Amino acid sequence: MIGTRTSELPPVAMSIYEGIRDLPIVSPHGHCDPAWWADDARFPDPAALLIQPDHYVFRMLYSQGVSLGDLGIGPDGRGRDSRDVFGLFMQHWDLFLGTPSRQWLEYTFHHTLEIEAPLSPETADAIYDQIEAKLVSPDFRPRALFDRFDISLLATTDPATSALSEHAAIAASGWSGRIVPTFRPDDLLNPQRSGYSVALFELAEMTGRDTGNYQEFLAALRDRRAAFRNAGATATDHDVPELVTCWLDRDQIAALHQGAVAGTLSQDEARAYYGHMLVEMAQMSADDGLVMQIHAGSRRNTNQALFDAVGPDMGADIPGAINWVGGMAALLNRVGNDPRFRVLVFTLDESTYARELAPMAGHWPCLRIGPPWWFHDSLNGIRRYFDNVVETAGYYNLAGFNDDTRAFLSIPARHDLWRRGVALHLADQIERGFFNQSEATGLGQWLAHDAAVDSYRLESN
Amino acid sequence: MIGTRTSELPPVAMSIYEGIRDLPIVSPHGHCDPAWWADDARFPDPAALLIQPDHYVFRMLYSQGVSLGDLGIGPDGRGRDSRDVFGLFMQHWDLFLGTPSRQWLEYTFHHTLEIEAPLSPETADAIYDQIEAKLVSPDFRPRALFDRFDISLLATTDPATSALSEHAAIAASGWSGRIVPTFRPDDLLNPQRSGYSVALFELAEMTGRDTGNYQEFLAALRDRRAAFRNAGATATDHDVPELVTCWLDRDQIAALHQGAVAGTLSQDEARAYYGHMLVEMAQMSADDGLVMQIHAGSRRNTNQALFDAVGPDMGADIPGAINWVGGMAALLNRVGNDPRFRVLVFTLDESTYARELAPMAGHWPCLRIGPPWWFHDSLNGIRRYFDNVVETAGYYNLAGFNDDTRAFLSIPARHDLWRRGVALHLADQIERGFFNQSEATGLGQWLAHDAAVDSYRLESN
Amino acid sequence: MIGTRTSELPPVAMSIYEGIRDLPIVSPHGHCDPAWWADDARFPDPAALLIQPDHYVFRMLYSQGVSLGDLGIGPDGRGRDSRDVFGLFMQHWDLFLGTPSRQWLEYTFHHTLEIEAPLSPETADAIYDQIEAKLVSPDFRPRALFDRFDISLLATTDPATSALSEHAAIAASGWSGRIVPTFRPDDLLNPQRSGYSVALFELAEMTGRDTGNYQEFLAALRDRRAAFRNAGATATDHDVPELVTCWLDRDQIAALHQGAVAGTLSQDEARAYYGHMLVEMAQMSADDGLVMQIHAGSRRNTNQALFDAVGPDMGADIPGAINWVGGMAALLNRVGNDPRFRVLVFTLDESTYARELAPMAGHWPCLRIGPPWWFHDSLNGIRRYFDNVVETAGYYNLAGFNDDTRAFLSIPARHDLWRRGVALHLADQIERGFFNQSEATGLGQWLAHDAAVDSYRLESN
Repeated sequence: MIGTRTSELPPVAMSIYEGIRDLPIVSPHGHCDPAWWADDARFPDPAALLIQPDHYVFRMLYSQGVSLGDLGIGPDGRGRDSRDVFGLFMQHWDLFLGTPSRQWLEYTFHHTLEIEAPLSPETADAIYDQIEAKLVSPDFRPRALFDRFDISLLATTDPATSALSEHAAIAASGWSGRIVPTFRPDDLLNPQRSGYSVALFELAEMTGRDTGNYQEFLAALRDRRAAFRNAGATATDHDVPELVTCWLDRDQIAALHQGAVAGTLSQDEARAYYGHMLVEMAQMSADDGLVMQIHAGSRRNTNQALFDAVGPDMGADIPGAINWVGGMAALLNRVGNDPRFRVLVFTLDESTYARELAPMAGHWPCLRIGPPWWFHDSLNGIRRYFDNVVETAGYYNLAGFNDDTRAFLSIPARHDLWRRGVALHLADQIERGFFNQSEATGLGQWLAHDAAVDSYRLESN
Repeated sequence: MIGTRTSELPPVAMSIYEGIRDLPIVSPHGHCDPAWWADDARFPDPAALLIQPDHYVFRMLYSQGVSLGDLGIGPDGRGRDSRDVFGLFMQHWDLFLGTPSRQWLEYTFHHTLEIEAPLSPETADAIYDQIEAKLVSPDFRPRALFDRFDISLLATTDPATSALSEHAAIAASGWSGRIVPTFRPDDLLNPQRSGYSVALFELAEMTGRDTGNYQEFLAALRDRRAAFRNAGATATDHDVPELVTCWLDRDQIAALHQGAVAGTLSQDEARAYYGHMLVEMAQMSADDGLVMQIHAGSRRNTNQALFDAVGPDMGADIPGAINWVGGMAALLNRVGNDPRFRVLVFTLDESTYARELAPMAGHWPCLRIGPPWWFHDSLNGIRRYFDNVVETAGYYNLAGFNDDTRAFLSIPARHDLWRRGVALHLADQIERGFFNQSEATGLGQWLAHDAAVDSYRLESN
Repeated sequence: MIGTRTSELPPVAMSIYEGIRDLPIVSPHGHCDPAWWADDARFPDPAALLIQPDHYVFRMLYSQGVSLGDLGIGPDGRGRDSRDVFGLFMQHWDLFLGTPSRQWLEYTFHHTLEIEAPLSPETADAIYDQIEAKLVSPDFRPRALFDRFDISLLATTDPATSALSEHAAIAASGWSGRIVPTFRPDDLLNPQRSGYSVALFELAEMTGRDTGNYQEFLAALRDRRAAFRNAGATATDHDVPELVTCWLDRDQIAALHQGAVAGTLSQDEARAYYGHMLVEMAQMSADDGLVMQIHAGSRRNTNQALFDAVGPDMGADIPGAINWVGGMAALLNRVGNDPRFRVLVFTLDESTYARELAPMAGHWPCLRIGPPWWFHDSLNGIRRYFDNVVETAGYYNLAGFNDDTRAFLSIPARHDLWRRGVALHLADQIERGFFNQSEATGLGQWLAHDAAVDSYRLESN
């Protein structure tokens, strides 16, 4: 089925695709759980593996009236039978027509899980059993799959106060898979996050520093960054709901830090504090070489009732308009010309591709544009991305691909979709006279593999 | 000529188009005058039928220096000869190259009015006579055309204080055409509208309620909604220039209502009042099942001199940027998870398709995305719409098509253009491997017909 | 190579392209130096001709870590060897894959400069020598090239206080090339510009008027406009960073003018002052017939360190979101219905094409949409432009093409790219049934040539 589909690529695209389809997978940003490879235990049942953790899937079902409880999610979902959940999903399979979820899942079922039956309510039970049979086999353990997927590197995303013990366990195990952490300090930097106080406490505990003092707080952050680098990290990651950066003088920021610790900041002060801390992070990145990632513009948890009942990450994060030029001004004017600094930016507001991000990437030495993010990681999203950024940013100011997923089994599917999108784009460029097939071959290699290695500084590590 | 054009669709698209071209027309939102079918009188002369009421047409002519008076519009246009107006329009026929107006009008002239001559200044007089000859024939009376067009339902848009007497007359006539009203309460809810005081007075008269009292005012609105439902309405409609919704406590809204009635609200207060009333309407929709339509983001009457001289709806309504996430937050957080509630949203800011509306429709159970609206109801506009919304919202969170027209003769043309756009989109999806021809066939039926029936709850009525 | 590329256009596009490829070039807006044709001296060395003045080129190199000094730009670049600079550029030739710069430069090298060798680091030295050999030949002097390029008109952009002596010298020389100035009064109107005081002083000097008095200041502006018209100008140009227009009463503006002259305006006052002056300019345009150009929405010099070290125009101008409807409201409501007035608008925010500019151009008699500007003057940018504006604005509310370049040698390349973009667009329209080949031929002539003549009133001059 997948074979049929990809064979339908037009000939020029097909030829480019075949040249990059089997390159090793580089996965420099995502949300897999390092414990999977530390423990190498079998994956749980099909619903827990494929449905319940995939917000793309359950948000679509929710939008058509399926309750999260019936999917075994949240307090109402406790004790729900995995087979029932899987069957319910299969009943609504048509909802996914036209979505990348369907393409990813078809690839995952047919290629990765080697299911031959068509996906349908009628075949749901049989498919459930077949998946279950796979999951108990040693070939489907996390490490075996990692090797089979030909992943040369996978980065997890870890709180700045993580002890990184799973990463240590993996390293100590002798297994050769390269799994590195990513430094994610949002809980320590943004006083508006619910985890702020706990994280601050943990930071003081871990580093033995008086984090109530601003200079000591900065030193503690540097300690943690060093620990991450020692564990193989090459990057940081920041989830920035509203993009603001600013640079305050030492007295101002010290005073705001007092307020942050005491929990007395107004909303505007908290925003300014976080805006300043992002610039501090950029400066530390210039110093220690960790590549900075900024994922900006997602309005989190817009469905309050759902958030209250079930929690965050329930499909109600919705993008908003964003001002990259103004929002990055203070940060870039502070470190943007420093040749040691690199920042990768991810947007959910596609109107900024051609208007702001491509012109910025085509100027600032530090800045590269991340691949289409989240809702835009799709075949048409990839087309819009290339259409909008390449003419101004070129190809070498792009950061390559990352799958950004917490669904490990979908990783080959997602990279495959990207590679097909790359092939379709390059073929279109050839047909419109931008360059020839030989140049396209080189760009295919760059976009499918090398750009990620280069942008995340994976060679130098 | 039309035959020639549609036969030029690529083969896969043609095959899909042929499967949906002749489906009955469902027209669940538009601005036709119900009196046409109540009276079943002949339509007026060609200019009054085709030129003067079509703001797409006269705005283009105005943009190229043709005065509205010469088109017989406004005070300067009184007594203008219909044949002269029609000739003036034909002189500028080239201006419409590339526009949907040209496509709609070609279809209307050649298919609906059965004119064989090419459209040109030279043929204007002869064509005028041919149209005139049609209009006097019984076959071109409103009811006969309605039947010939194979319209299974047509919804008009009616002020909340309309007596709905034309709808009653149609029902009493024994004619089988299904024409239903739509509840449009803007004049009662938005104190900034010029019709506000009159509408409020009418509401009190019609319902016998003390509408100065907020609870009684709400009750009067419920009375009118019930009257509309009794007349067959399944939907409401709201024209929201600036999208704001909010929920005020009972004391606040009661006080604002006093101010609204007294005409003493500041601009901010009036906005808050209207924002709250939209949420009240959403709650009533959850209760009584009327589907809520929100058309948001058109800045009305931006040409003040023209407005002063001729009035509203003169082609100077221009879209602006809109924030759907923030603007809908209060409404959705109040009723968005209620399974009884449905809201259809229409945007003129296409940058919100992929950024906001598709992610919202792919989460909220109540929300579906209306078809490309107004300037974007065009072949490329349809392409952009599908390209931007489907991957995140899927097909089943779309509301199907509606023609939104006050030009009755153009209805078949507009549905035909949509159906061709659907066919071109689905063919492109097949070629890019999203799904197969059999799945596309089902989606074609959904997009051309069933989605409108389902989204507007026309079966349950 | 170019031949190869253009022969790859699909047949229908090729046929349209061949019909417009060799039309004379009309260049009604750009930034060439009139001294070139006044003096008719040989052009400087290859780097000074092709690399150092081209901000598209050096910004891309800068974005990949090449210092401006190494390119012979700015204080650090003094005395840099031209051949070394050219070699450095050739080393990074791959960076331009997919960009319009590469397409323009390929055309310039292979067609205009008749270089046959492929562009590469290895051939850099030989190519440098070949260019150098061309530049000394009489055939490559400015006037000879102007004639060879078949330019029927070229407009420069000149400060309002320019003495226009080069234009006078050209006129006096007897050479037949038509080179006209464009009235650019930004330095006189926008108190936030660094050149404001000097320009005001020059204006008083040139006109002998007391420019501290507001009415006399307006009269002095009229004097300069008349001088430009006498030198052949048909247009003005305005660089508007943030689009605001407003109309103040006579007392207010007179008071603000005092403040502007005295340098005491706050930022808000300066913005209001400039906003009012734009409306004054529009009124003067209605009176004297100069076509008004507004280039709005570029945030200038966003890299402060670079600006401090090297100056403006160093590749750090980045577009931002813009509100055309609100921003133009005061101007259009003052003169927008005046049949004598014409304004051409240029945007860098493509989200405004379909949302704001096309609806505005399809209504206001005065307004036409300028071609894709700056970063969007590219093959995909042209595609997006047509896709977004034509259906609502039609073709006759478009201003045709202008190259907007300070790189004289690139002019044929840029017009060629536009003409290929036009051909591809029109062919796509034919295939989608918008019109037939004969209508497309007429539109090709309009878009490639006539629209610019008509929009800039070049015939009437």
